[in-house]
Amino acid sequence: METIVVALGARSYPIHIGPELLGQPALYGTDARQICIVTNDVVAPLYLQRVQDALRGRTVETVILPDGERHKTIATFTAVIDRLVDARFHRDACLVALGGGVIGDLTGYAAASYQRGIDFVQVPTTLLAQVDSSVGGKTAVNHERAKNMIGAFHQPVAVLADLATLASLPARELSAGLAEVIKYGVIVDAEFFAWLEAHVDELRGLDPTALTHAIRRSCEIKAAIVAEDEREHGRRALLNLGHTFGHGLEALGRYERWLHGEAVAIGMALAARTSLALGWLGPRDVERIERLLTRAGLPTRATGIDPDELLEAMRGDKKADKVGLKLILVEALGRSITARSPAEAQLRAVLAEQLK
Amino acid sequence: METIVVALGARSYPIHIGPELLGQPALYGTDARQICIVTNDVVAPLYLQRVQDALRGRTVETVILPDGERHKTIATFTAVIDRLVDARFHRDACLVALGGGVIGDLTGYAAASYQRGIDFVQVPTTLLAQVDSSVGGKTAVNHERAKNMIGAFHQPVAVLADLATLASLPARELSAGLAEVIKYGVIVDAEFFAWLEAHVDELRGLDPTALTHAIRRSCEIKAAIVAEDEREHGRRALLNLGHTFGHGLEALGRYERWLHGEAVAIGMALAARTSLALGWLGPRDVERIERLLTRAGLPTRATGIDPDELLEAMRGDKKADKVGLKLILVEALGRSITARSPAEAQLRAVLAEQLK
Repeated sequence: METIVVALGARSYPIHIGPELLGQPALYGTDARQICIVTNDVVAPLYLQRVQDALRGRTVETVILPDGERHKTIATFTAVIDRLVDARFHRDACLVALGGGVIGDLTGYAAASYQRGIDFVQVPTTLLAQVDSSVGGKTAVNHERAKNMIGAFHQPVAVLADLATLASLPARELSAGLAEVIKYGVIVDAEFFAWLEAHVDELRGLDPTALTHAIRRSCEIKAAIVAEDEREHGRRALLNLGHTFGHGLEALGRYERWLHGEAVAIGMALAARTSLALGWLGPRDVERIERLLTRAGLPTRATGIDPDELLEAMRGDKKADKVGLKLILVEALGRSITARSPAEAQLRAVLAEQLK
Repeated sequence: METIVVALGARSYPIHIGPELLGQPALYGTDARQICIVTNDVVAPLYLQRVQDALRGRTVETVILPDGERHKTIATFTAVIDRLVDARFHRDACLVALGGGVIGDLTGYAAASYQRGIDFVQVPTTLLAQVDSSVGGKTAVNHERAKNMIGAFHQPVAVLADLATLASLPARELSAGLAEVIKYGVIVDAEFFAWLEAHVDELRGLDPTALTHAIRRSCEIKAAIVAEDEREHGRRALLNLGHTFGHGLEALGRYERWLHGEAVAIGMALAARTSLALGWLGPRDVERIERLLTRAGLPTRATGIDPDELLEAMRGDKKADKVGLKLILVEALGRSITARSPAEAQLRAVLAEQLK
């Protein structure tokens, strides 16, 4: 097992990475006597018992939600709160989020809001959640017209990234997680990007040594950026590479056509192509990005999407602000920047070319 | 006009106190181009136009909610969020809470949650909100089975305590506000308590000089305590004098029988009597507390309340925790302490005596 620490002063917390962590009580990092595990009906049959066993001897409630992004709503959030009120949980209770990003985001927002904030532990069971949503304290539920519109910044007390849980993950979801891993290389670490080029096949084959390195390095990069800019006033925005395009695509695909990581992969390719059109990135680097995404089992283009509709959807994304569209673009592998209102003509040309 | 500053580092903010502040644009302390005023149908006809005029030249949305504590719910919170999404408000938008504590708490929680946190301004129009709920950053909505169960700590960017708005306040609500003012004297400031004994009639007569002093001193005391303990891990709990009793009474009275301040007044008298029964407070001080509450137009006893039901309701309050009931008790005028699981026998005897 490896452990890294997200350094946020009084809100610092450890991320434990390794096989078979769920059964180790000490890793949960909480003395709370009242625990509520929040999970979904796909994950529960696989891992719930192990978590319950690890927390034996305390009062443990369990909320099992239906699986899927469409349940990441205020209604489901309220159902979790109802359970906590019914069970008379106090301020020193602790939530445990057992599942992917949907469970983590929703449980985190419930923990942020119940009695104005109680502890929670992240037990991410997808690669995407292990390298992304469980690090950084962003929690949220979706509004019916916009993703992650209602939420809070609330840090967990510990994260358990158990590699054993990835064995049950469908290959398509493993690839979706790799999209975020590749993103870290593109935005700030060319060396990690090159390592991924050399080890992408091992990652897809669930090699534990390769997985540990990839998750550790991803969490380290995200943790360092978050420690510098917890509330996304500056540098943290780089983590959104591919996400403004991606959120637009997800909305147009009604959150069914692509997994989040797939939409981000297409978004990264669009960001790379836009960077190329603006003369910031060379064609060789664009090719390396698209090739690695493809080898990771990810799409880099979309068909049947109207560029104007996509731009409109992107403007509704919360990363836009009063000065207009804000995109993360790439200057070179391992070096990215925030571009406010990038040249509309080049952007449109890229979309017209890549989405036809 | 007087201005005090709540010192919370990067989250510090001014509280302006004086007559006719609503019309002064600079006091709102925000450059936001998108503003949403949240108010209710009692306050809107009186003051909305003045606020809208002050914010002229920006995009101003208005949400007018029905008046009353029973609308401080997740459903109403969601209605505010819906409006922000519909109007495509960005992260740099600002909410303005124009009304009493219900509007302030609900608007603050919406501001805390929309896109994980945007700015908001408090324009409290009741004495209670001016001296209590607009200071300290506690925001929340009620759960149907417990008050303030869902919320966040989120500081405003400015508070405008406009004395002119108190002219329209019913006398009963003015008295309810005085309960919290008296509380500040009891918990930490014997001199202020004595000043209140000398000026309570002027306060009930809306004398501007007396009001300014009382609001200023109340905000100073609360601001100092909050600056020391923003998230209520210690000293901030003193602000809850009378509130655990009070919340229990409010619940048993179905939030209709007493205003919040009235329930707190009875709660303070019960806390004083319990302190007396435990030998911590002299009978002369108990008499002074009850007499000042009475002169302020407040109740100090309740009839028809079952002591066991009240204790049960108090245990469900979120100020309880795993070690049992936590009460704020009084050692002397101006000196209070947190008592964990106070002697049950004395507590029951006091309730039996005071509630018959």
